[in-house]
Amino acid sequence: MDYNKMAIELHQKHQGKISVCSKVKVEDSVDLSVAYTPGVAQPCREIASDESKVYDYTSKGNLVAVVSDGTAVLGLGDIGAKASIPVMEGKSILFKEFAGVDAFPICLDTKDVEEIVRTVQLMEPVFGGINLEDISAPRCFEIEKRLKEILDIPVFHDDQHGTAIVVAAGLINSLKLAGKKISEVEAVINGTGSAGIAIGKLLIEMGIKNIVFCDINGVVHEGSEGLNWAQLEMAKITNKKGETGKLVDAIKGKDIFIGVSAPNIVSSEMISSMNENAIVFAMANPVPEIMPEEAIKGGAFIIGTGRSDFPNQVNNVLAFPGIFRGALDVRASDINEEMKIAAANAIANTISDDEISREYILPKAFDRRVAENVAEAVKKAAVDSGVARI
Amino acid sequence: MDYNKMAIELHQKHQGKISVCSKVKVEDSVDLSVAYTPGVAQPCREIASDESKVYDYTSKGNLVAVVSDGTAVLGLGDIGAKASIPVMEGKSILFKEFAGVDAFPICLDTKDVEEIVRTVQLMEPVFGGINLEDISAPRCFEIEKRLKEILDIPVFHDDQHGTAIVVAAGLINSLKLAGKKISEVEAVINGTGSAGIAIGKLLIEMGIKNIVFCDINGVVHEGSEGLNWAQLEMAKITNKKGETGKLVDAIKGKDIFIGVSAPNIVSSEMISSMNENAIVFAMANPVPEIMPEEAIKGGAFIIGTGRSDFPNQVNNVLAFPGIFRGALDVRASDINEEMKIAAANAIANTISDDEISREYILPKAFDRRVAENVAEAVKKAAVDSGVARI
Repeated sequence: MDYNKMAIELHQKHQGKISVCSKVKVEDSVDLSVAYTPGVAQPCREIASDESKVYDYTSKGNLVAVVSDGTAVLGLGDIGAKASIPVMEGKSILFKEFAGVDAFPICLDTKDVEEIVRTVQLMEPVFGGINLEDISAPRCFEIEKRLKEILDIPVFHDDQHGTAIVVAAGLINSLKLAGKKISEVEAVINGTGSAGIAIGKLLIEMGIKNIVFCDINGVVHEGSEGLNWAQLEMAKITNKKGETGKLVDAIKGKDIFIGVSAPNIVSSEMISSMNENAIVFAMANPVPEIMPEEAIKGGAFIIGTGRSDFPNQVNNVLAFPGIFRGALDVRASDINEEMKIAAANAIANTISDDEISREYILPKAFDRRVAENVAEAVKKAAVDSGVARI
Repeated sequence: MDYNKMAIELHQKHQGKISVCSKVKVEDSVDLSVAYTPGVAQPCREIASDESKVYDYTSKGNLVAVVSDGTAVLGLGDIGAKASIPVMEGKSILFKEFAGVDAFPICLDTKDVEEIVRTVQLMEPVFGGINLEDISAPRCFEIEKRLKEILDIPVFHDDQHGTAIVVAAGLINSLKLAGKKISEVEAVINGTGSAGIAIGKLLIEMGIKNIVFCDINGVVHEGSEGLNWAQLEMAKITNKKGETGKLVDAIKGKDIFIGVSAPNIVSSEMISSMNENAIVFAMANPVPEIMPEEAIKGGAFIIGTGRSDFPNQVNNVLAFPGIFRGALDVRASDINEEMKIAAANAIANTISDDEISREYILPKAFDRRVAENVAEAVKKAAVDSGVARI
């Protein structure tokens, strides 16, 4: 199917994908007096005297801003705020479709970290959560960190944590099938952008034995040149054996390969050099680091990609709708590590032990159980970790 | 009816009044591939290479931001961004209900003019128009002026121009009934806030003979103390006879009284001192400057108020939905004076000469002809004045 052509037709026909709807009827002057003046003054007064009532009388509690500056959109790079809108509108409708979350695109015409942080802070009153999207690294790390400090609503950079959570879910089920424990395995992550770093951090949280990062120059270690602060931070807590060389060296004897990098950079021979029952997540899009049949030829036990036309698709839509649903439902002040790990487990556990197989380690995108399970698990984790406010 | 109680119940039941809806279905993986990745990349690419296509492929062309800082909300004053949300959500649903415009509340947590201007500028990519709302004077004048200069989408401060347009519409029909021409009449405007000043400006554009402004200290003239720059600007072009004194002096012999001020400050004796066929718009809310029966007792020919329970309600909902509908439909770069005057005439002319009466000089809020007539007139005026872009 020619998705490009179909997409142009769809977007043109509807002139975009979102609209703003009313939850109340306004058909006569009584409606007008209740939804608007003079009646509306009363909820205003009550919020003015007790700010927490903003959740009772406005749409804030179910409203998420999908914020981007258009600097790292899909594989297209820095295409600017306007050109990023179709993606942010798309994200908004997925929030609604999968979890009933109202989401609105905020595409900002600046690349300045200070300005982005301040702008999101200023518009926070109407939103119950902030989903950062397609902001280039390492700026995305700083923007997220700063906003998490400043705001008391959840802030979540989906390119980082959404991807990390779904990869973690896939790994949980893959390791179960492979008969390995996360504390016993070593992974190589190729790609040190926002997704790669977030995956590394989450796997460390989950107790992985060792991770080695590679980038275009080869194995990342503390002495690597040209690392940004976020990469250097990771270099300090990974590569425990002080490995050097290239990806072809690093991948030898590893249990897991995770690619968030570039097409066709892994050969079946490289897969053959991995530990037995090798787990491969080749997520470059649309062409993965290694095609599934090549990976299988090299002896891969599990192969996942970012594509819907192969088994084991790593799709963020498994994570973000349920995560925000859960966070919003308990008015969480944050989306913390406990909530992310709970989400990963909930995604993994949506597939029962009977159903699980080498070609079915992750639920399908349209498995409606997922968002519900994730939301429940995230709610519980928010309560248990003390960030829930109702 | 207890509108306050009903409003609390309504707002609590629905937790606010707006939601974000999808215009496209996302029910299977083909839908996902067209509305989101990989298909969505194609509209992104096309917008990146031709910015004007943002109107073809996104919701921008029908999306208005309702921007407030919560400093002058209804009669409640400076209640802050969060407490202003119910009003801005209300405004948003009126845009939708009356003219099919998608509008979204942007309530900003700052009172700093620079920050407000910059924030609106940064979020402009997703919006086709900016409706400023409930921002205190004189800050609102500067914010609107700056944004009109910077942005190439329409910027409209409804408290100013919406009110001015509906008052102008009411005057057009009142003068018709009274057998007077605007070029022959003199008005006193009591109140020098955003609405008062905008009404004055529009009536001057429409060729009124003379206006005298009054404020709490009495008649405004160039020598009045404590005027802000916007009031001083008006002082220079009004009060052509150099009047002084108080409202009770200024109102004598005038044809028109326009109140955007405070309850019960005009007596029936003061109305009696006006010219014959006196036209009175007493718009303080909820209690007008003079109650209709008192005004009639004083000999008023026409009495309009802001209230829906009296005849001749001056209601902004007659103006803003159709104005933005018209401006958006032709991708106008501005809402200029020609468009405002066209809107006023369209509102007035919705009532035929047969229907018009002393108690029916303005269409009812739910007269569905109004928004349509206003949109058509505004479109034509935009084209004629050269600000239409399609």
